[in-house]
Amino acid sequence: MISIRQAVPGDEKAIFYLIKELALFEKAPEQVTNTASQLAKDLFEDCICEAIVSELNNEIVGFALYYTSYSTWKGRCLYLEDFYVKEEHRNKGIGSLLFDKVVQIAKEKGVKRMDWQVLEWNKTAIDFYTARKAILDPEWINGRYFF
Amino acid sequence: MISIRQAVPGDEKAIFYLIKELALFEKAPEQVTNTASQLAKDLFEDCICEAIVSELNNEIVGFALYYTSYSTWKGRCLYLEDFYVKEEHRNKGIGSLLFDKVVQIAKEKGVKRMDWQVLEWNKTAIDFYTARKAILDPEWINGRYFF
Repeated sequence: MISIRQAVPGDEKAIFYLIKELALFEKAPEQVTNTASQLAKDLFEDCICEAIVSELNNEIVGFALYYTSYSTWKGRCLYLEDFYVKEEHRNKGIGSLLFDKVVQIAKEKGVKRMDWQVLEWNKTAIDFYTARKAILDPEWINGRYFF
Repeated sequence: MISIRQAVPGDEKAIFYLIKELALFEKAPEQVTNTASQLAKDLFEDCICEAIVSELNNEIVGFALYYTSYSTWKGRCLYLEDFYVKEEHRNKGIGSLLFDKVVQIAKEKGVKRMDWQVLEWNKTAIDFYTARKAILDPEWINGRYFF
């Protein structure tokens, strides 16, 4: 039984476990300096971001985390920061359910655009987004400062 | 006389004019569907984003617009959505003043990371960021849906 629901306090440990799994897949596990308790505060107290989780037989096996962003060209947008399904539970339609739910939430919020990023070598993810007729734009380079 | 200050109600027309100039430079003027009055609401009423402006002899000649974003790896971040100085007023140090001010604001807010994007062909901007020892990471592709 697959179900999708809004994340609630208590989910932070399971979500953070998946965040670390995704960072490992993205070859940057050492970059994760966040913690499950900080994530809980950011999600449920300060409401900087929101998350939905997918459960399979009451186990959290995937999640999507997003927040309100802004485009000077378009107005209010939704940024999909993380979107992940555990490797052993892929190809069961969980990713589609999660992604479709985020798109539905974006529409309900009335945002003008939904944005995310994908690593250029992540062919599986690129194929997933291409199949959903997303626009993939490689023309921009990320700039960053760490504090 | 160059000065930098927080944007206030009434600045939206001058800022929006610069947003359109920047979109023209980025070869996408037709993508701007936002309006000055919507920008004013987003900046000053709903506080989705914030902006600083640079004035030269009381004329707004540059701006930076940013908002709180989130990294599951790092925590609370600052996203620099737009950063622009009118072409005829470049090489006067205005960009440096604006950028340094945004970095200072990011530090004051206690964010873990400051992010932005630059077009891969915008050599002047890339040189500007490189000179400031920013990390430029071309490994990510932007995914988008428009609503």
